[in-house]
Amino acid sequence: MPKKVDHEERRREISQALWRIASTRGLDGVSLRDVAAEAGVSLGRLQYYFRSRDEMLVFALRQINQLADQRIRERIEKAAAELTEQPPPRFVLRECLAGMLPLDEHSRIGQLVAAAYFARAVHDERLRGEAREGIPKLRDFFAGLLRQAAERGELPTGRDFDEEAMILISLVDGLTAYTLLHVHTPEEALRLLDRHLDRLFEPGAARQTGL
Amino acid sequence: MPKKVDHEERRREISQALWRIASTRGLDGVSLRDVAAEAGVSLGRLQYYFRSRDEMLVFALRQINQLADQRIRERIEKAAAELTEQPPPRFVLRECLAGMLPLDEHSRIGQLVAAAYFARAVHDERLRGEAREGIPKLRDFFAGLLRQAAERGELPTGRDFDEEAMILISLVDGLTAYTLLHVHTPEEALRLLDRHLDRLFEPGAARQTGL
Repeated sequence: MPKKVDHEERRREISQALWRIASTRGLDGVSLRDVAAEAGVSLGRLQYYFRSRDEMLVFALRQINQLADQRIRERIEKAAAELTEQPPPRFVLRECLAGMLPLDEHSRIGQLVAAAYFARAVHDERLRGEAREGIPKLRDFFAGLLRQAAERGELPTGRDFDEEAMILISLVDGLTAYTLLHVHTPEEALRLLDRHLDRLFEPGAARQTGL
Repeated sequence: MPKKVDHEERRREISQALWRIASTRGLDGVSLRDVAAEAGVSLGRLQYYFRSRDEMLVFALRQINQLADQRIRERIEKAAAELTEQPPPRFVLRECLAGMLPLDEHSRIGQLVAAAYFARAVHDERLRGEAREGIPKLRDFFAGLLRQAAERGELPTGRDFDEEAMILISLVDGLTAYTLLHVHTPEEALRLLDRHLDRLFEPGAARQTGL
């Protein structure tokens, strides 16, 4: 299907122009015309690929999330190869969460696009659908890892895995925001995440089980 | 100083027009002209009070934060009057954190203005100054409450109060974002905050002290 592949490839190229704008001056007030200029295509051509700014924004966000997933997966597979066994659930969880923080230029650009998406989505039910679909999936995945850790005796019992997973996602979101605002450095954000994980996995915290 | 009071009053009125726009269609792409129209003043008159959109945004954000502070302080004072003593540090901490969540229309509008500020500030060093100044003050205040709680034997020792305070602020920020995106309800956000506080204050979690 060369035609379809080509269509997707053009969409990706245009969406990369959106990233470049997002990572430099931000998307506030940026029009389809601005993105067309950055991509070096006419407005009419851009509109053939994206009917609206929001459609383009969601496409760019999905693409960025896919690339982030891929980078995280590669890091975990690399670790698995070095360990010559499945990495422990806590390791996988920590790699995923760290991969969501703006620790390098790739993830920083991703988070800047996400910030633009956020500012729009709070006012648009259709755009919110993207977060309402993606976040519960992520929560379930993290809750599954926490459950595995508990089964291996690495996490105190008596935890609500869904709740702890959602707390982790929310914490990383806040740490990301304050990193982008330069309230703390990326390294400090990672340290705070690790501090939280240490406490979550802390064996002493077993009061609820009657120990 | 009637003249100065009047000036501030006009600035507050114009900033309330900005809130109304923020709470309905959002501030993305909104110009000074749009705000002037909403406030029922001419563009020239608005520019007499605010030289730029960003100056207005920071003013609106500060005003909203002041009003939120006031509401939180009133709730704590009311509780103190009912208890006929100083409320415990954990109570004060929880009231402050809950007051930062978009649990009612007041705080929801405040958070929508904050979302617009965030989208701009990630690209503007001067705007970021607002967060870089305010957040460390808030962290110090919360760290002080955690220290008081530890001194009263209500919080396990061996905690880094600054780190725990920054984790709390980041968590509330993330919970707020996912509430505004309708990923969870305000009530669920509050429940997750309480779950985190329960664990932070959990007496069993004293491994680091050698118990």
